[in-house]
Amino acid sequence: MVMRWLVGDALAPIVVWDEPFFQGKKHEFTTDCYSTPEHGFSTVRSCKIESGAWAGFEHCGFQGQQFVLERGEYPCWEAWSGSNAYHVERMCSFRPIACAVSAPAPAPPAGRPRAEMSDDCPSLPALGWGSSTVGSFLVRSGAWVCSQYPGYRGFQYLLESDSPAGEYKHVREWGSHAQTGQVQSIRRVQQ
Amino acid sequence: MVMRWLVGDALAPIVVWDEPFFQGKKHEFTTDCYSTPEHGFSTVRSCKIESGAWAGFEHCGFQGQQFVLERGEYPCWEAWSGSNAYHVERMCSFRPIACAVSAPAPAPPAGRPRAEMSDDCPSLPALGWGSSTVGSFLVRSGAWVCSQYPGYRGFQYLLESDSPAGEYKHVREWGSHAQTGQVQSIRRVQQ
Repeated sequence: MVMRWLVGDALAPIVVWDEPFFQGKKHEFTTDCYSTPEHGFSTVRSCKIESGAWAGFEHCGFQGQQFVLERGEYPCWEAWSGSNAYHVERMCSFRPIACAVSAPAPAPPAGRPRAEMSDDCPSLPALGWGSSTVGSFLVRSGAWVCSQYPGYRGFQYLLESDSPAGEYKHVREWGSHAQTGQVQSIRRVQQ
Repeated sequence: MVMRWLVGDALAPIVVWDEPFFQGKKHEFTTDCYSTPEHGFSTVRSCKIESGAWAGFEHCGFQGQQFVLERGEYPCWEAWSGSNAYHVERMCSFRPIACAVSAPAPAPPAGRPRAEMSDDCPSLPALGWGSSTVGSFLVRSGAWVCSQYPGYRGFQYLLESDSPAGEYKHVREWGSHAQTGQVQSIRRVQQ
């Protein structure tokens, strides 16, 4: 079953670094990586997914804790880990996810970027959003939660249509502890 | 603006404990809690959302890091935090989210529970799934990621339709490090 992944088609790349925040040694992969040490990386400490979706794994050989990585920027371990109960800052193998669905609206916004959304989106970059930040929101209905990293990870901020006019004009208005406007996923809140 | 939440309608409860894993002192809230210390809790260390959606906050007065809490079980800080870059195990105020959307299929499954899904679901309990665990999966198409806690938090496991017949008959088959079948959210993987 593992062999299936070793003969996968070449895809758009995952770019990895051996230091956090896209520093240090860099390598681009377009297909499976069974073992980062074989490529001279003891582990991966930051990565960017430029296209497609990838599955990362804690150990070599696609073993251990799993990390689903959609298009976007992952500057540190916290950005891709789904769990902090089990704190191992390690990603030693990864492979493309062949059957992931394509984003519904891949056209990048033109001019001053603006996107209208009515559905959950685990990766704004996959929608063609050209930046890892958002400057403002207008919430027409319901409650939404936006997150710092793809896949609903990192800091999260609540956006509500019944706050005054649903307008969030500046990063200061959607989170008192927000340091940047970094937002890479957004979804509706369900009850 | 904060006052709006202090006069909100009573809702179905959030139940909180002052120790992890639903241990220690217990209290049930049906409306806003501006300050847990005022109720004799220095902080909340575990909670269950029985209905509705709630916003939790790091500090008293709905300040600091935000946590969106949908229906389900949150046994520890890791279960509700969206970020571990900023490790403060604290939730000192919370309020209902009034405008969250209702889950699309609230009827609980009868008999031997079985649910068919075609859309992302941040809370299986909100769909009427009566347990915090799942015994098996059949993936008809695409790639999905299931997560241990509501809101796509905790350990995560990749489920793919092109793995043999899309069948995951036991927790051992969807994650080598999984200790339980605890699954409380599930969504499609996007590329």
